Amino acid sequence: MEKAILLAGSAIGAGLAMIAGIGPGIGEGYAVGKACEAIGRQPEASGPVTRTMFVGCAVAESTGIYGFVVALILLFANPLLGKL
Amino acid sequence: MEKAILLAGSAIGAGLAMIAGIGPGIGEGYAVGKACEAIGRQPEASGPVTRTMFVGCAVAESTGIYGFVVALILLFANPLLGKL
Amino acid sequence: MEKAILLAGSAIGAGLAMIAGIGPGIGEGYAVGKACEAIGRQPEASGPVTRTMFVGCAVAESTGIYGFVVALILLFANPLLGKL
Amino acid sequence: MEKAILLAGSAIGAGLAMIAGIGPGIGEGYAVGKACEAIGRQPEASGPVTRTMFVGCAVAESTGIYGFVVALILLFANPLLGKL
Amino acid sequence: MEKAILLAGSAIGAGLAMIAGIGPGIGEGYAVGKACEAIGRQPEASGPVTRTMFVGCAVAESTGIYGFVVALILLFANPLLGKL
Amino acid sequence: MEKAILLAGSAIGAGLAMIAGIGPGIGEGYAVGKACEAIGRQPEASGPVTRTMFVGCAVAESTGIYGFVVALILLFANPLLGKL
Amino acid sequence: MEKAILLAGSAIGAGLAMIAGIGPGIGEGYAVGKACEAIGRQPEASGPVTRTMFVGCAVAESTGIYGFVVALILLFANPLLGKL
Amino acid sequence: MEKAILLAGSAIGAGLAMIAGIGPGIGEGYAVGKACEAIGRQPEASGPVTRTMFVGCAVAESTGIYGFVVALILLFANPLLGKL
Amino acid sequence: MEKAILLAGSAIGAGLAMIAGIGPGIGEGYAVGKACEAIGRQPEASGPVTRTMFVGCAVAESTGIYGFVVALILLFANPLLGKL
Amino acid sequence: MEKAILLAGSAIGAGLAMIAGIGPGIGEGYAVGKACEAIGRQPEASGPVTRTMFVGCAVAESTGIYGFVVALILLFANPLLGKL
Amino acid sequence: MEKAILLAGSAIGAGLAMIAGIGPGIGEGYAVGKACEAIGRQPEASGPVTRTMFVGCAVAESTGIYGFVVALILLFANPLLGKL
Amino acid sequence: MEKAILLAGSAIGAGLAMIAGIGPGIGEGYAVGKACEAIGRQPEASGPVTRTMFVGCAVAESTGIYGFVVALILLFANPLLGKL
Amino acid sequence: MEKAILLAGSAIGAGLAMIAGIGPGIGEGYAVGKACEAIGRQPEASGPVTRTMFVGCAVAESTGIYGFVVALILLFANPLLGKL
Amino acid sequence: MEKAILLAGSAIGAGLAMIAGIGPGIGEGYAVGKACEAIGRQPEASGPVTRTMFVGCAVAESTGIYGFVVALILLFANPLLGKL
Repeated sequence: MEKAILLAGSAIGAGLAMIAGIGPGIGEGYAVGKACEAIGRQPEASGPVTRTMFVGCAVAESTGIYGFVVALILLFANPLLGKL
Repeated sequence: MEKAILLAGSAIGAGLAMIAGIGPGIGEGYAVGKACEAIGRQPEASGPVTRTMFVGCAVAESTGIYGFVVALILLFANPLLGKL
Repeated sequence: MEKAILLAGSAIGAGLAMIAGIGPGIGEGYAVGKACEAIGRQPEASGPVTRTMFVGCAVAESTGIYGFVVALILLFANPLLGKL
Repeated sequence: MEKAILLAGSAIGAGLAMIAGIGPGIGEGYAVGKACEAIGRQPEASGPVTRTMFVGCAVAESTGIYGFVVALILLFANPLLGKL
Repeated sequence: MEKAILLAGSAIGAGLAMIAGIGPGIGEGYAVGKACEAIGRQPEASGPVTRTMFVGCAVAESTGIYGFVVALILLFANPLLGKL
Repeated sequence: MEKAILLAGSAIGAGLAMIAGIGPGIGEGYAVGKACEAIGRQPEASGPVTRTMFVGCAVAESTGIYGFVVALILLFANPLLGKL
Repeated sequence: MEKAILLAGSAIGAGLAMIAGIGPGIGEGYAVGKACEAIGRQPEASGPVTRTMFVGCAVAESTGIYGFVVALILLFANPLLGKL
Repeated sequence: MEKAILLAGSAIGAGLAMIAGIGPGIGEGYAVGKACEAIGRQPEASGPVTRTMFVGCAVAESTGIYGFVVALILLFANPLLGKL
Repeated sequence: MEKAILLAGSAIGAGLAMIAGIGPGIGEGYAVGKACEAIGRQPEASGPVTRTMFVGCAVAESTGIYGFVVALILLFANPLLGKL
Repeated sequence: MEKAILLAGSAIGAGLAMIAGIGPGIGEGYAVGKACEAIGRQPEASGPVTRTMFVGCAVAESTGIYGFVVALILLFANPLLGKL
Repeated sequence: MEKAILLAGSAIGAGLAMIAGIGPGIGEGYAVGKACEAIGRQPEASGPVTRTMFVGCAVAESTGIYGFVVALILLFANPLLGKL
Repeated sequence: MEKAILLAGSAIGAGLAMIAGIGPGIGEGYAVGKACEAIGRQPEASGPVTRTMFVGCAVAESTGIYGFVVALILLFANPLLGKL
Repeated sequence: MEKAILLAGSAIGAGLAMIAGIGPGIGEGYAVGKACEAIGRQPEASGPVTRTMFVGCAVAESTGIYGFVVALILLFANPLLGKL
Repeated sequence: MEKAILLAGSAIGAGLAMIAGIGPGIGEGYAVGKACEAIGRQPEASGPVTRTMFVGCAVAESTGIYGFVVALILLFANPLLGKL
């Protein structure tokens, strides 16, 4: 029974950690939209705008990746299990 | 009974992980709308704008895909089950 | 009793997964509205605008479809059931 | 008693799945409003604008329909019931 | 007692399903307001604008109707009851 | 005791169903405000604007009425009661 | 004890039903504000604007009144009580 | 004990009913602000603007008063008490 | 024990009733800000603007006062106590 | 034990009552910001603007003070305690 | 055990009371930002603008201070403790 | 066991008190952004703008500091502990 | 068992304290965006703008750091543990 | 059993800590979007704008990293475990 409580807690915790993905999803969509607007106004600026957008999105993606990593650790390499 | 608690926790955790899909849904819709606006104003910029939009949406989609992957792992390859 | 807890958890999890549909619903509506605005301003740009809108909405729809897939898996091909 | 828990869970899950309808409701309303604005400004563009609006709303409606389908499956063809 | 739990769950589920009505309520109100604004600016465009508004509202209404249908099914033709 | 649980559930469900009234309340208020603005700008357009507003509000009111109907059914013609 | 559960449920349900009043409160306030703005800009349009505002507010009020009616029914003419 | 449950439920229900006051509070504040703006721009329109504002606020106040009435009924003339 | 449950419920209900104060707080602040803006633009309109603002705020304050009254009744003249 | 339940309820109720402070905090900040903007644009209007702002903030503060008073009553002059 | 319940309730109540700090935090930040904007546009108005801002923030701060005071009373001079 | 309940309550209360940090975080960020905008438009106003910003942020910070202080008191100098 | 309750409460409290990070995250992002906008408009103002931005962000960061400190104290130097 | 409660609490706490990632995700996306807009308007300012954006995002990222660190500590170096 002990293990079951820990493991059910881990499964719910993994789901909670994924909710952080709402932030980068909205934020990157805003960035992409603004980039499209900028290119539509000045197509010749397409190079530096898309380059900025991609590197910026990679940065904004990071908190979503942190959540993904925490969920994967909870599922595959659950370090709490060894301490039970 | 132990397994049932773990598995019910996994099913609810999979549902929670899918809620992250709200973010990319709103964000990508914003990006598509801005792209339509930009093309409507300068149809000749249609090429670089849609290209930027698609690659950007692919990046913004990522956190939604992370949530999907976590849900699939919880359902099909639940690594917690082997540790019970 | 074990099965009932798992199955009730799956039914609630399926309902939670569908809530992700709020995101694409709002986002795509925004995209459609912006496309209508753009066409209303430049009817001759109708072709590339609607094309962009449809492919973009297909991309934004994806997280809603992920949630639908997870719900269907929970209902019809519940892989957790075989492990009880 | 087992069946009652499963069925009560299914009824609540069906209600949760319908909440996804908030998204398409707001989004399509935004699209219709923008279409009315566009037609009011250029009545001669009425054809392509309404056409775009209807097909776009059909796409945005999809996540609401997914939720409806999941609720109907939970009510009429509950596949979880056969596995109890 | 079994039936009471199922029926109480159905009554609460019917109430939850009606909450989806918030979305079409806000969205259609936005559409009506934009239509009034457009007609006020160009009264001669009154025909196509109101026509677009009514058909669009009928589409946006759909998710509210889905919720109403699910609530009525839960109340009057509860298919879960026959399976108890 | 069985009946009491069902009836208490029905009373709470009726209260939940009324919450849907938030949507039409906000939406119709927005529509009325926009109509007042339009009439204030072009008093001669008063006829078609108010006509559009009233029919539109009648449509937007519908989800609020659905919730009211569900609440009344739960209170006065509770079909679940006959199945206990 | 049965009656107490039903009656406590009715009292809480009446409180929940009143929350619907948030919607008309915000919406009508918006309508009144827009009417004041319109009159301030064109005092001679005061007649049709206030007339529109009052009839519109009466429509928008309706969902708040539905909630009030449901609460009064739950308190004074509770039809569920006769079925216990 | 029965009475205590009913009365505690009534007290919490009265508190819930007062939350409806958030709506008129925000809405009327918006109306007053718009009225001040309109008078500041055209001081000679002060008469019809304030008159509209006061009657409109009286209408918008109504849902807050409904909540107050329900709370007072729950506290002073609790009709549920007589049915215990 | 009966009294303790009723009294604890009354204390929590009084706290809930005060939350309604969020609405007038935000709304009146908006009104005051708009009044300051209007006076800053036309200092000679200071008289009618502040007069409108004060009477309007007194109206908007009302729902906050209702909540305060309900809380005081629950604390000092709790009519439910006499019915235990 | 009875007293402990009542007192713990009072402490939590006092905390809930303070949450009402969010409203005046946001609202008064908005008013102050608008006043600064107005003074920055017309420094000679500084007198009537600040005077309006202070009296208005005093009015907007009132709901926060109500909450404070209710919390103090719950803590120092808890009238419910004498009725246990 | 009685004391522990009261004291745990006091600790949670103190935490809840601090949440009121969200309001002044957002509101004062808005005021400071508007003041910076005003000074940046008219540096010579720096004196009256900052003076207004500081006194206004002191007023807006008050609800945060009320919450702080309630928390300190709950922690250091808990008057409920003497009544146990 | 008594102490454990009090201490767990204190730990959760400390966490709740820190949530107040959301307000100053958003508000100060708004102020800094407005200051950057003002300096970018008039670099010569850099002195009074940054000075205003820093003193204003110090004021806005205060509610966050109150929450920090309450959390530290709960953790290090818990006055409730001595009263157990 | 006592220690376990305290420690589980500390772990959840540490997680709650980190939620305060939402505020600085949004606020600083707004500040950085405004700074980029300002530099893009006047590249020669780059020096004072970035300097203001960094010092301002350091101030806005503070509430996030408070939450981090509280979480670290709860985890590594839990002063409540010594009092059990 | 003691260890299981602590470890389940740690897993849920780690999930809660990751939710802080919503803030930096939205904020950095806003910053990237504003940077794209600025570069699109003045491509020659690309250097200082992207430099400001990256260093600013690194600062805004910090609260997300704090949450990640707290989650990793809870999972891998749980200091609470040694104190059980």
